[in-house]
Amino acid sequence: MDQPNTHILLINCPDESGLIFKVSKIVYQHKLNVVSNGEFVERKFNHFFMRTEFSGEIDKNLLLNEVKSVLPPSAEVRLTANTKKNIVILATKEYHCLSDLLIRHTFDDLNINILGVISNYMHLKELTSKFEIPYFYVDHSDKSREIHEQEILAITRQLDPDFLVLAKYMRILSPSFVQNYNNRIINIHHSFLPAFAGANPYQKAYERGVKIIGATAHFVNEMLDEGPIISQNVIPVDHTHDAKEMARSGRDIEKNVLADALRLVCNEKVFVFKNKTIIFD
Amino acid sequence: MDQPNTHILLINCPDESGLIFKVSKIVYQHKLNVVSNGEFVERKFNHFFMRTEFSGEIDKNLLLNEVKSVLPPSAEVRLTANTKKNIVILATKEYHCLSDLLIRHTFDDLNINILGVISNYMHLKELTSKFEIPYFYVDHSDKSREIHEQEILAITRQLDPDFLVLAKYMRILSPSFVQNYNNRIINIHHSFLPAFAGANPYQKAYERGVKIIGATAHFVNEMLDEGPIISQNVIPVDHTHDAKEMARSGRDIEKNVLADALRLVCNEKVFVFKNKTIIFD
Amino acid sequence: MDQPNTHILLINCPDESGLIFKVSKIVYQHKLNVVSNGEFVERKFNHFFMRTEFSGEIDKNLLLNEVKSVLPPSAEVRLTANTKKNIVILATKEYHCLSDLLIRHTFDDLNINILGVISNYMHLKELTSKFEIPYFYVDHSDKSREIHEQEILAITRQLDPDFLVLAKYMRILSPSFVQNYNNRIINIHHSFLPAFAGANPYQKAYERGVKIIGATAHFVNEMLDEGPIISQNVIPVDHTHDAKEMARSGRDIEKNVLADALRLVCNEKVFVFKNKTIIFD
Amino acid sequence: MDQPNTHILLINCPDESGLIFKVSKIVYQHKLNVVSNGEFVERKFNHFFMRTEFSGEIDKNLLLNEVKSVLPPSAEVRLTANTKKNIVILATKEYHCLSDLLIRHTFDDLNINILGVISNYMHLKELTSKFEIPYFYVDHSDKSREIHEQEILAITRQLDPDFLVLAKYMRILSPSFVQNYNNRIINIHHSFLPAFAGANPYQKAYERGVKIIGATAHFVNEMLDEGPIISQNVIPVDHTHDAKEMARSGRDIEKNVLADALRLVCNEKVFVFKNKTIIFD
Repeated sequence: MDQPNTHILLINCPDESGLIFKVSKIVYQHKLNVVSNGEFVERKFNHFFMRTEFSGEIDKNLLLNEVKSVLPPSAEVRLTANTKKNIVILATKEYHCLSDLLIRHTFDDLNINILGVISNYMHLKELTSKFEIPYFYVDHSDKSREIHEQEILAITRQLDPDFLVLAKYMRILSPSFVQNYNNRIINIHHSFLPAFAGANPYQKAYERGVKIIGATAHFVNEMLDEGPIISQNVIPVDHTHDAKEMARSGRDIEKNVLADALRLVCNEKVFVFKNKTIIFD
Repeated sequence: MDQPNTHILLINCPDESGLIFKVSKIVYQHKLNVVSNGEFVERKFNHFFMRTEFSGEIDKNLLLNEVKSVLPPSAEVRLTANTKKNIVILATKEYHCLSDLLIRHTFDDLNINILGVISNYMHLKELTSKFEIPYFYVDHSDKSREIHEQEILAITRQLDPDFLVLAKYMRILSPSFVQNYNNRIINIHHSFLPAFAGANPYQKAYERGVKIIGATAHFVNEMLDEGPIISQNVIPVDHTHDAKEMARSGRDIEKNVLADALRLVCNEKVFVFKNKTIIFD
Repeated sequence: MDQPNTHILLINCPDESGLIFKVSKIVYQHKLNVVSNGEFVERKFNHFFMRTEFSGEIDKNLLLNEVKSVLPPSAEVRLTANTKKNIVILATKEYHCLSDLLIRHTFDDLNINILGVISNYMHLKELTSKFEIPYFYVDHSDKSREIHEQEILAITRQLDPDFLVLAKYMRILSPSFVQNYNNRIINIHHSFLPAFAGANPYQKAYERGVKIIGATAHFVNEMLDEGPIISQNVIPVDHTHDAKEMARSGRDIEKNVLADALRLVCNEKVFVFKNKTIIFD
Repeated sequence: MDQPNTHILLINCPDESGLIFKVSKIVYQHKLNVVSNGEFVERKFNHFFMRTEFSGEIDKNLLLNEVKSVLPPSAEVRLTANTKKNIVILATKEYHCLSDLLIRHTFDDLNINILGVISNYMHLKELTSKFEIPYFYVDHSDKSREIHEQEILAITRQLDPDFLVLAKYMRILSPSFVQNYNNRIINIHHSFLPAFAGANPYQKAYERGVKIIGATAHFVNEMLDEGPIISQNVIPVDHTHDAKEMARSGRDIEKNVLADALRLVCNEKVFVFKNKTIIFD
């Protein structure tokens, strides 16, 4: 259960003996009440991960410094209040992921606060307006990708979200855009990656004759559809499904997989390491 | 439910009006008792498929000729008793799919009769012998692939099975071998195809950081791992699974997916069309 | 794929020889183009079911009469255009199923037309109003169940829907209310029935320590949670989920299972027989 | 990944501040290498659970005493080498779970050593003998349940297993028998408990018309089918499945669920608390 009014301490560093002892000692000495605690050692690179969620009054800098002092110098440490994350959604024409996030935002189901929706079409403006969320129409016609992305970037810079969410945004973002939001852009891809990366996955799935289709939520990196996978799910299909019917069936898992990924990311449950995710759920 | 003492009529042809009427009329006139009936029209190529299972006495040639007389000239028609299918299993060192089939054969769980097991190793001889199934050891060392396959072919030709089953047979069969058993070789691949085709799928799945792994049973054609898919299934994994642990988890779905594919194929429930399967289950 | 501008012929009757032949003959003679066709014989009661979807011009009464003339006298025959079904939704306070149906209605994802929402609370009025659907607040406080139901019935009689949808409506409907809509009320129950029928299924699931939770969409009959099941789905849980967390996780399958059931029912794919459903999908 | 040559420390006690710190301090001071570590606090009863797997040389009594000295007096502490667990299997006539365990035992897939198979029928003797496992036929005809159980108990006492595994053993064990093996008897029930507890679950599932069937592995306590659940899984079914076909489909998940439960239990990953399981996997 995700608890309000808690803090989360996230540590990753090369593994060495006694890390749990040393960190838990500090937490204990500060008289903090541990809500949940998880550790993992990645064996291939011998790398240590720890996530501790606790309640209690803290002096953030003091606590951070104490923790850092017992860890290897290369350790990454993050201490954050468990508060709502600000997101900006990019969408194109499809309504199902966007509407799902608007509803969840409205009823406080995810730990998110939607700052705005950016789209290269007007299709979803009416929907977005129902929920009183600003809609930014950024037409891409007659523009280079570079110009289009700069216009988007101007908006996202002003809104300053914690995460960008690509809710079926059907244009490819350039590496230079992505670099502005390293491991902070979350995409939903409508296939069970790495199967059917790229365009038209349902058409490809239909042509290949697969018996299961899926959806994948992942962080976006500079390589299309190759970023760290956060969440995946699948549903069965059969020979009676053409590509259009697969797309219809797939919508329900797309929106759930994206929401699941946001729940994990926005509750600070996800580490990214070597293009993979370590998830404490 | 699969019924003994029935016949199965399998038809596929270009679609045209009245096919169900014309075929069901013949079945009715022969006073046959329909156990189950299924039809499907593939819309892209406008192709008709029909599977009728019935009980009752038949004059096979007469019935076949009558059915053909009402169908387009290019129709493929097959009329077969619902009897056990003879299979030959090829395996290498892994025990789980082979043992599963040996057990199912022993207790009559699948509609199969295992004629023999062929392997390029001795590892599974003791297991196979427990079930009194002939074991053919065909060493591949110091032989060209061609010679090795000819030795295997000599055995399969003598055993004359309905289907060859690759139960984790870890060598690639050449197109010239495969041509001897067109749509009659069934392979279990340890990934959710088309993801991770080729060698070492669990290692690749681990490296990609997927959250779900799978298994795929398919007919083998001349292109590695690209034949018509019969059955697929998946299980969740997470960051705590390394490649070895994924392989261990995957074994349970590999054997179930292979058994499921054999149940479908050996009960004459599968059509192959344009590198896909149409399945009446 | 569900096709507009088609008709659907639904037949069920005691099984006898030649039914498929006789019905398909009539369809053929009327020069109708069969889009999909399915038959099933329930073996315990030897009862025949057939669903034929076709395009083409019809004289509805003529066709119906011809079909009836070749069937046993007790046959039930239904011939209907594949059009949108009118529904009225009953809800209480939970937003997730209602919002999902409002969104699908808005974007034409299901074959439904929402005539109105009836609730015993005001909680969902604002949401419903965003989508310009009439909201009927029928307070239940200080009223007998009988009076409350009569007030609801007055509204549903006026709206005259094809189906009533209980989208997490948390009051039990009396048998006398249900009799007005025999096999036309669809409920979503937040457990994998028959496990945890009745009140507080997530609390009961938590107390029992199950490792999987589910949701069930079913027709409502006079016995609470015992009507014919249309659709079910499940998700894994573990010891870290308390009842509240199970409820949160369960919401996503509840809404998908309810939508799936409506898709089946509103596309005329469901027969009810002996308190079970026969589904042609 | 389950590692040989490790020890496992299992702790459960009322929660209090600093437990992780205090225990991990001792592990650190003993210079043990932590392989995996997990903690969980059950919030309803405020109870703490910890499982630590480590490698390194230990003085078992010394380590146990040190750990106990920092825990509340009511703490339960267990320190065990990660070795194979001895099991005795009880079966009746069905082959699928027994054969699956015999195969896994033969190929070292589970952390088990099968000491013997006890059955009230001769049906599975030939199968068991193939794997050179002792088979004890204990006929139940013309005997009271008490006498029959005493005969079984005489055998299990001599074999002295860590766990009894009911691999589709179709007789109900009396509370007095069960008391001899508290939380040490593992049963596979062929339904998704608590649905369809008791006899003939597939027949009941068929009659209820469910769309999903399942299997449940649980510890046996004095109440039939009400012990702590270890593992569950499900598969979809539809109206074409009668009870016999459900049973056939269910066999594949029954054996996998039972094997999964044994993997968890025999690798010391399962705590039992208040009739539920806490699982560190």
